[in-house]
Amino acid sequence: MKRNVIVGQSGGPTAAINSSLAGVYRTAIDRGANKVYGMLHGIQGLLEEKYIDLSEHIRTELDVELLKRTPAAFLGSCRYKLPGIHEDKAVYEKIFAILDKLDIEAFIYIGGNDSMDTIKKLSDYAILTGHQTRFIGCPKTIDNDLALTDHTPGYGSAAKYIGTSMKEIIRDSFCLEYPKGLVTIVEIMGRNAGWLTGAAALSKGEDCEGPDLIYLPELTFDIQSFRTKVEQLLKKKTSVVVAVSEGIRTADGKYVCELGKDINFVDSFGHKQLSGTASYLASFIAGELGCKTRAIEFSTLQRAGSHLASRVDILEAYQVGGAAVKAADEGDSGQMVVLQRISDDPYQCATAVKDVHKIANDEKCVPRNWINKDGTYVTDEFITYVEPLIQGDVSPVMVDGIPRHLYTPKELYKK
Amino acid sequence: MKRNVIVGQSGGPTAAINSSLAGVYRTAIDRGANKVYGMLHGIQGLLEEKYIDLSEHIRTELDVELLKRTPAAFLGSCRYKLPGIHEDKAVYEKIFAILDKLDIEAFIYIGGNDSMDTIKKLSDYAILTGHQTRFIGCPKTIDNDLALTDHTPGYGSAAKYIGTSMKEIIRDSFCLEYPKGLVTIVEIMGRNAGWLTGAAALSKGEDCEGPDLIYLPELTFDIQSFRTKVEQLLKKKTSVVVAVSEGIRTADGKYVCELGKDINFVDSFGHKQLSGTASYLASFIAGELGCKTRAIEFSTLQRAGSHLASRVDILEAYQVGGAAVKAADEGDSGQMVVLQRISDDPYQCATAVKDVHKIANDEKCVPRNWINKDGTYVTDEFITYVEPLIQGDVSPVMVDGIPRHLYTPKELYKK
Repeated sequence: MKRNVIVGQSGGPTAAINSSLAGVYRTAIDRGANKVYGMLHGIQGLLEEKYIDLSEHIRTELDVELLKRTPAAFLGSCRYKLPGIHEDKAVYEKIFAILDKLDIEAFIYIGGNDSMDTIKKLSDYAILTGHQTRFIGCPKTIDNDLALTDHTPGYGSAAKYIGTSMKEIIRDSFCLEYPKGLVTIVEIMGRNAGWLTGAAALSKGEDCEGPDLIYLPELTFDIQSFRTKVEQLLKKKTSVVVAVSEGIRTADGKYVCELGKDINFVDSFGHKQLSGTASYLASFIAGELGCKTRAIEFSTLQRAGSHLASRVDILEAYQVGGAAVKAADEGDSGQMVVLQRISDDPYQCATAVKDVHKIANDEKCVPRNWINKDGTYVTDEFITYVEPLIQGDVSPVMVDGIPRHLYTPKELYKK
Repeated sequence: MKRNVIVGQSGGPTAAINSSLAGVYRTAIDRGANKVYGMLHGIQGLLEEKYIDLSEHIRTELDVELLKRTPAAFLGSCRYKLPGIHEDKAVYEKIFAILDKLDIEAFIYIGGNDSMDTIKKLSDYAILTGHQTRFIGCPKTIDNDLALTDHTPGYGSAAKYIGTSMKEIIRDSFCLEYPKGLVTIVEIMGRNAGWLTGAAALSKGEDCEGPDLIYLPELTFDIQSFRTKVEQLLKKKTSVVVAVSEGIRTADGKYVCELGKDINFVDSFGHKQLSGTASYLASFIAGELGCKTRAIEFSTLQRAGSHLASRVDILEAYQVGGAAVKAADEGDSGQMVVLQRISDDPYQCATAVKDVHKIANDEKCVPRNWINKDGTYVTDEFITYVEPLIQGDVSPVMVDGIPRHLYTPKELYKK
């Protein structure tokens, strides 16, 4: 590379997104890039000329290692969607003026569906105007819902967190006996795709029965049949554990978390409170069956749990970042790096690039035949797919008993 | 020891309670005990003659190591409180008949306040009736609220989990920019004692500013002053993170989680839904300040997170279990093992025994001078106290990418 590289992060953060950033940085430097800039809060920040020189933040080999172990977007993220080129040309002119000013050869964007839309539009604009900057997308999302790639960096670590925490919850759940049993409902992210919720089954093994029921958002949720299944299970076990996606919906298309909405109460300060899927179902089951219930949400913990990251995931995220820079350096543009699985066991996977036009705004869901007939569990095929992605650990660098992260750019959160 | 030992677990589970069980088992075997029985679901199960022979479950050295790494009560737990001796003598007669039948020399009970009440009553009854069985308590609670001991096994691992997860949440919280900022409220266990909530400050370091506000249950919570503080912080930062105890109360003694209670809605199935402290405050702040808010509960994850256990905690839990058996073997009864800190740095701690009559039903809170004047943070003294307790890691035994636990006795949850 002869000129500079700029990299941004976009969409929901993950435990592996900074490993991709580390891969971009190191590969760009190794291939001779003069400067590597980081957009603060993605393309939205870039439009306000908010960026940093990454070499001022990643100074040593140790910093690279810390960055790989730092959860959430080191550069900050955004959910900004570029207008169509013909809708607002001025935005594009502004972006490209900034890229020219910074002498950018490669523009790397680490993100999910929306971010690939950004890469698509910017590379289209570059073609239209004969601009030389190359635009490459780097996949990232815990949701694992990107098309054309076997899986997305970030997913494996979230799946490992979910499998591990689910096992700990199951273990905890049968300690205390309740007269009518205990039903624990665990709510997991992934509004339309059940990849994360299905990962709850990873807790199953010789030493753990796994959750009793798993409900993915791909299928319609029937609350009465759910009630019946729980009731039957309570006849055999003192504790029933259920994994549900935040996005499960009833036959009329309503999200379960919205079922109590019409009558959601307004508190003494006049604020409306919404309850989540798990807490709704927990209160439903408690009312119907009279048993003790518990609602648990993994919330942001499942996407930020870098202390429990998967080694396969962190290394692949790093490779994917490097592959993005390499592709740009070799002349590609309008492409996203993808992961192509060569074999399950031993697990082998390679990077390739695919036209971003075929990826953007598409959503990959769990295939129907990877969910059991009942719609209450994932199949062995699902486990065979996900298990290689959670292997190995990345030991945190512990300082005073707590994992150390790379220092955050203060520009990110100070006003 | 010439005869048998029986051990039980009681109260809320922790990540270290099974390490104490391992310590009891190994020490009893090493000191010549014939059999080591485990009560299933504590004294409540014993009353129904539910117990197992531990040697059938802990067969190898590896099993001992797995048991140390297994969260939640391996034997199951209970919240059963023994009646007074003069209220119901029959219960005592039944228990002692079972102990005689099993030829029990030492009865070890691992638990918190209520469990020490059990030890007190049983040892009193033994004295009254001239019975030879010895009764020793083994401290355990994530709440760290037991009197006379420097700290309780279980607390260090929970504190490490809270410090680590809090740091990951803080990191996640400033990724995305919101027009009026983001306020994240994290709810932490400990209804009357703020030891766990204060541990949120462990996330603070060179690489992290820590939570912005910490509210312990020891002090009255003023919701309007809280609102003002958050408003001021939002002028300086894009993201504000607050740690609150589940037990904070307003000046009239009402729990914050009960503030919305009178108007809690009843859903379409007629079930009442209660919201937690964090979700109440999140909705309050959203309504008052118009910013984005997020409520996170660490829930059972904080007490079951053995994958992130503190080495100091797991080893001390093991030692305490061993010390309990040793004390019984040497003739003690009606005592609880305590931890006595010798120095902070280097951290040194020794076991001793104390009369259980001085411990039972007492509750140790965070001293006022370990909380800042404002009541919004813990002081350096608090950190000096807790930091040694979270040091070191216990590598999980990973199988297929997920921590392996010791197999659970099926009697525990199968009906």
